[in-house]
Amino acid sequence: MQVSQQRLREDIEANARFGDIDAPAGRGRTVLTGSDADRRAREYFVERLRDAGLSVRIDAVGNVAGRWVPAGADPDAAPVAAGSHLDSVPEGGIFDGPLGVYAALEAVRTLQERDADVSLDRPIDVVSFTEEEGARFSHGLLGSSVATGARDADDALAFHDADGTTLETHLDAIDFRGTDTIDAAAWDAWAELHIEQGTVLESAGAGVGVVDAITGITTCTADIVGEADHAGATPMDERRDALVAASEFVVDFRAAADDVAQNQSATAVGTVGQFDVTPNARNIVPGEVTLQMDIRDVNYRAMNAIAERADAALARLETTHPVETSFDRYRDQRPSRMADDCVDAALDAAATEDIDAKRMHSAAMHDTANVASVTDAVLLFAPSADGLSHNPREWTDWVDCATAASVLAGTLARLAGA
Amino acid sequence: MQVSQQRLREDIEANARFGDIDAPAGRGRTVLTGSDADRRAREYFVERLRDAGLSVRIDAVGNVAGRWVPAGADPDAAPVAAGSHLDSVPEGGIFDGPLGVYAALEAVRTLQERDADVSLDRPIDVVSFTEEEGARFSHGLLGSSVATGARDADDALAFHDADGTTLETHLDAIDFRGTDTIDAAAWDAWAELHIEQGTVLESAGAGVGVVDAITGITTCTADIVGEADHAGATPMDERRDALVAASEFVVDFRAAADDVAQNQSATAVGTVGQFDVTPNARNIVPGEVTLQMDIRDVNYRAMNAIAERADAALARLETTHPVETSFDRYRDQRPSRMADDCVDAALDAAATEDIDAKRMHSAAMHDTANVASVTDAVLLFAPSADGLSHNPREWTDWVDCATAASVLAGTLARLAGA
Repeated sequence: MQVSQQRLREDIEANARFGDIDAPAGRGRTVLTGSDADRRAREYFVERLRDAGLSVRIDAVGNVAGRWVPAGADPDAAPVAAGSHLDSVPEGGIFDGPLGVYAALEAVRTLQERDADVSLDRPIDVVSFTEEEGARFSHGLLGSSVATGARDADDALAFHDADGTTLETHLDAIDFRGTDTIDAAAWDAWAELHIEQGTVLESAGAGVGVVDAITGITTCTADIVGEADHAGATPMDERRDALVAASEFVVDFRAAADDVAQNQSATAVGTVGQFDVTPNARNIVPGEVTLQMDIRDVNYRAMNAIAERADAALARLETTHPVETSFDRYRDQRPSRMADDCVDAALDAAATEDIDAKRMHSAAMHDTANVASVTDAVLLFAPSADGLSHNPREWTDWVDCATAASVLAGTLARLAGA
Repeated sequence: MQVSQQRLREDIEANARFGDIDAPAGRGRTVLTGSDADRRAREYFVERLRDAGLSVRIDAVGNVAGRWVPAGADPDAAPVAAGSHLDSVPEGGIFDGPLGVYAALEAVRTLQERDADVSLDRPIDVVSFTEEEGARFSHGLLGSSVATGARDADDALAFHDADGTTLETHLDAIDFRGTDTIDAAAWDAWAELHIEQGTVLESAGAGVGVVDAITGITTCTADIVGEADHAGATPMDERRDALVAASEFVVDFRAAADDVAQNQSATAVGTVGQFDVTPNARNIVPGEVTLQMDIRDVNYRAMNAIAERADAALARLETTHPVETSFDRYRDQRPSRMADDCVDAALDAAATEDIDAKRMHSAAMHDTANVASVTDAVLLFAPSADGLSHNPREWTDWVDCATAASVLAGTLARLAGA
């Protein structure tokens, strides 16, 4: 199901103009939800949906869906949907999000051209979710969380940006607070194409990644409290040094993550990325350390194993050091398993086109993780040059974009009943 | 050699008015070098020196000395000197510095009253050193470093404060850039009385501390460089986590300091007080850690042992972790040993007055550390309530001030040849 590389490229390049920035290398853009760049990107998208004959719906949080009903399809059948997002991080790249949105549209255009040959039973929705990046409202995957019912639209509309302006106000300003309903649970299946943001495909020389699981994330914070004291006047055996205790914890935490990765689940990772010492002055014995842990895996039991060992290591510190500790697992997103039927459809679509597909997991979060909680879903990856993303140097060759989009088109054709 | 508690208190309380602050508890003051408070404190000091008949000299960096030549003394004999400093940290206490300056003056006044009874061979200088705290120009012990020849006056005058104003400009503004020379190497001996800023005397119930050594300080910085990476996408066995490596170092450093304190010199201390992680974000594997070590002891070999083991532990990290390290021992102040004769004079003066004296070391730096490098010196301590200092709650009872000043007077009498 070969799509047109030329049409896909034209749409992505047209979209790249909205919020474009001067970058010393590469092509960058800043598209924050509710900005003028966002309005222009959305208006262009709606125009392109209508150009292709799709009927457009916009929901309360600005999610946009365009529906195509193939000639032989039942208009009331549960549709198959595909898409991604148009927003970006500040000074992000031009592919993260837009590739999946315009690949879905290009897949529909390609299927329309072959409507006589392929027999589709279901309508197809082309979707763009609002605020995937969370760059303006600090809540990523926002649009899909509303479309899947995980979050009330009213709650989401009340979120405010750093200036205190709500999502509702921003959407009103760009005239994209709609009145339609977009219900992901009503979709028969979902597929998203996204850039990989890693080097697995590049290393393997594969044309497309077929993701069978999206990693879960749990985040924990620990507080280790000793006592700040004069670094000269406090003898070694009278110290309550929070940094020494916290350092021992970091070493224990790493050992726990290594052990789980080696013996339980090779994809498990655990990181202490943030580590703040108080008062953090050369001549004062540290009185307190607060640190943040990030634990991810496609295997939830492995995530739990690392988190539980972190908790136990902290409790142990209280017996070996004169410190008090606290532990809070304050966020817990389980791994998402993709539906076997959808994964098989994508692998079959790639095989039919003689495209080398790599079955893999995603270590990053995507809207598909939300959608997979309410319907069958699959996530496809296109190769990322050097794994770069969230950066103007993010790049995927146009031929690679088209190759992955062709697999998406074949996947949608299979899921829609061809 | 009983001094007058009343006169001593009047001077310290008069001095406490200069730069006084509203403090919720205690009595605080802010006297930064070159400020109006500093000018007033200096002018009052000069006035009090002249009231007592002393001849006043002011050197290029604003050090002030008043000389008394006892009736039977040789005016050309090498004098004995005593004093401390009048500047303070921001919102500091009223005793840190001024006690030593006005106790020296009170000792001279007491000796003057007994000039007929005591026979002194040498002149006595009463001294106030400029910028002991380093609160304005970031170089503590500044005045004594110039008086001892460790630093050129011109270099010191070129130091600038946070606003870029030089010491020279500040001293000109308050008219205290003098033309006399104050040469500590020309003194036959030196004694300084200071508050302890610790709880050794309070715990021991002693009236005075006779310091036989001032701790040395060496400060080192270490840089540990790995590679910042995505916390989700980087497998455990491909990480170059600088925080894990640095944590192992902190544990090793603590073990080295503990070992040296237990087996080589009980007074040795080693602290990692400052510890900065880059980029310090929860979802990024830490790429770099920079940390600061503070190592102190009265035993220089013990200080070296800790520093050398720190260097070796860092080098070892490069073999056990995929990181690069660097180590810089950028400041090294050796311990100062007080002169036996001076220590004995102070102990004898206390014994004669039936004052319980405690021989001890100083874990904090004082101008005496500089002076001891060019002549015989001793440091005396008065008890500090709860060990507090650099704080408006810093306190020493007036009777304790007078007791310690009496020991200073007796010490000066012995050193000047009574």
